[in-house]
Amino acid sequence: MPVRALWFHHGVLSLLDQRALPGRTVVLRLTRLAEVAEAIRTLAVRGAPSIGVAAAYGMVLAKNEGTYAPDRAARILRATRPTAYDLFVGIETVRSAWKSGQDVLATANAYREKIVEECYRIGLAGAPLLAHASRVLTHCNAGALATVEWGTALAPIRVARERGARLFVWVDETRPLLQGSRLTAWELAKEHIPHAVIADNAAGHFLATGLVDAVVVGADRIARNGDFANKIGTYEKAVVARENGVPFYVAAPWSTFDATRATGRSIPVEERGEDEVLELGGRRVAPRSSRARNPAFDITPAKFVTAFITPRGVVRPADLSKMLSRVQKDAT
Amino acid sequence: MPVRALWFHHGVLSLLDQRALPGRTVVLRLTRLAEVAEAIRTLAVRGAPSIGVAAAYGMVLAKNEGTYAPDRAARILRATRPTAYDLFVGIETVRSAWKSGQDVLATANAYREKIVEECYRIGLAGAPLLAHASRVLTHCNAGALATVEWGTALAPIRVARERGARLFVWVDETRPLLQGSRLTAWELAKEHIPHAVIADNAAGHFLATGLVDAVVVGADRIARNGDFANKIGTYEKAVVARENGVPFYVAAPWSTFDATRATGRSIPVEERGEDEVLELGGRRVAPRSSRARNPAFDITPAKFVTAFITPRGVVRPADLSKMLSRVQKDAT
Repeated sequence: MPVRALWFHHGVLSLLDQRALPGRTVVLRLTRLAEVAEAIRTLAVRGAPSIGVAAAYGMVLAKNEGTYAPDRAARILRATRPTAYDLFVGIETVRSAWKSGQDVLATANAYREKIVEECYRIGLAGAPLLAHASRVLTHCNAGALATVEWGTALAPIRVARERGARLFVWVDETRPLLQGSRLTAWELAKEHIPHAVIADNAAGHFLATGLVDAVVVGADRIARNGDFANKIGTYEKAVVARENGVPFYVAAPWSTFDATRATGRSIPVEERGEDEVLELGGRRVAPRSSRARNPAFDITPAKFVTAFITPRGVVRPADLSKMLSRVQKDAT
Repeated sequence: MPVRALWFHHGVLSLLDQRALPGRTVVLRLTRLAEVAEAIRTLAVRGAPSIGVAAAYGMVLAKNEGTYAPDRAARILRATRPTAYDLFVGIETVRSAWKSGQDVLATANAYREKIVEECYRIGLAGAPLLAHASRVLTHCNAGALATVEWGTALAPIRVARERGARLFVWVDETRPLLQGSRLTAWELAKEHIPHAVIADNAAGHFLATGLVDAVVVGADRIARNGDFANKIGTYEKAVVARENGVPFYVAAPWSTFDATRATGRSIPVEERGEDEVLELGGRRVAPRSSRARNPAFDITPAKFVTAFITPRGVVRPADLSKMLSRVQKDAT
């Protein structure tokens, strides 16, 4: 059965609790805006497209509760996390429907369907890139958990597999929160896709020794010029991939593209608590008096991106702005 | 009190068990060759210069036991770990003294003193480099624990501090075994040197945002042309440092330089067990069916090295071969 990160029925938003994976499969059943905000803030649901969809349903729950004005509900959800652009797109989509008296549930459902459809199209667009790149490195989790279904980085891998390609995936464990070893490996294991988890430190070694044919990652926010924010560590992989002549692809649905931003310079980077670095499974690993810094994302300049894998096909950074204008025009 | 990784008195090699730090201070008291080999293999003692000294004393213990021929004792110790060159130098120094009937204990003591003295000279040579580089990034542990006293990468920091420099150290946590957060942070905390532990993934972010003035690391083996092996992840930091115009220094005593190797291509890279990646503190973090790869070192080409900090001063990679010839001539 394909993985689904969340679903909505009869006024309840059900979420796979991503903090419990891969050890336990826990489903959270949320009926209130505050619960959705908390689930996003604490990473029960994570991945830019997934938190956009979760927030869209959070708006639906807020309306059901009957005590929120649309702007206030939107404000609460917007304050949960700063970096992923999809969050703001998901919220805004339902807020404007709510304010203009449209059916908010139908709007949220349509938003979810659009994301899932776009991810599948990313898979179709990206699969040919993997025809001659059988060993793929990915960072963090840009799979079904991060996107409701299919994934962004993992969608081309899934579609290529359906077509009979034999692929092997290098999975960066992705410290501090191990979305690679906990979540990406879990998705790949479920589908029997051969993979090996590696310390983030080891990616360079495998890139330099010719064992990686392509790097494919997702994104949390992409500026008009192609600079993009993604999980901390993405920038290092991009720099080292270019140094070794290995193509570096970024896969994302339209909700991740922030057309209001000319470059990546001004994308806000969330900094999370020190304990995520200083502790492992609740046990302190560093001395008591040591401090930590914990930026959750970094910004990779467009010059390191070979191409973006989008729902409308593969596009070079230089052509991105033009494509975004077309997408925007078609939407209006 | 300054940290000492190991000491030898009355036929007993005492080692700070580096696996227990920073939570507990455990001293292992070893009296047999097999115990020293086990301590090196299991990383109770680690760091290229430290394992060289530990192995030298292991040879002394082997002679005391009375049941080993020098070549057999050397063979057992050489088989413990493949990458650090110091291991082979330490073993060979005592083996040849033993075979020619010299005092093996005096030889091992002199070897230890030479390493400690060289590390202090590395500190003297490197401190001026930090006069205008107050924020230093380091990877793994190249401190006193790794070198008996002073450290390699940390020696210039210690000497600069003695001279009144105000320094801040970025500490890569260094997955999978966390030598950064467990050991380097412990040494820095003991001496009240301001520092922050970061996920290895975050180093690129701080390099790219102008918050790192210099990178200083140790080494496990350095080839004649300046290619070098060091803890996995070093290569990524070196590539990203160069991309951002941040100087990258490699500090090492002479026992780390392998004059028999023209380049880094043929340096053997140890691959350790999968569980170091798949488990955290004994708890499985990846799915049961997931595999891992766990190279413990990577090779960084000389072109990424700004300079080597040696006991005879700071030397550019282009001048390294010449200096090594002089050192070798002076030693014979």
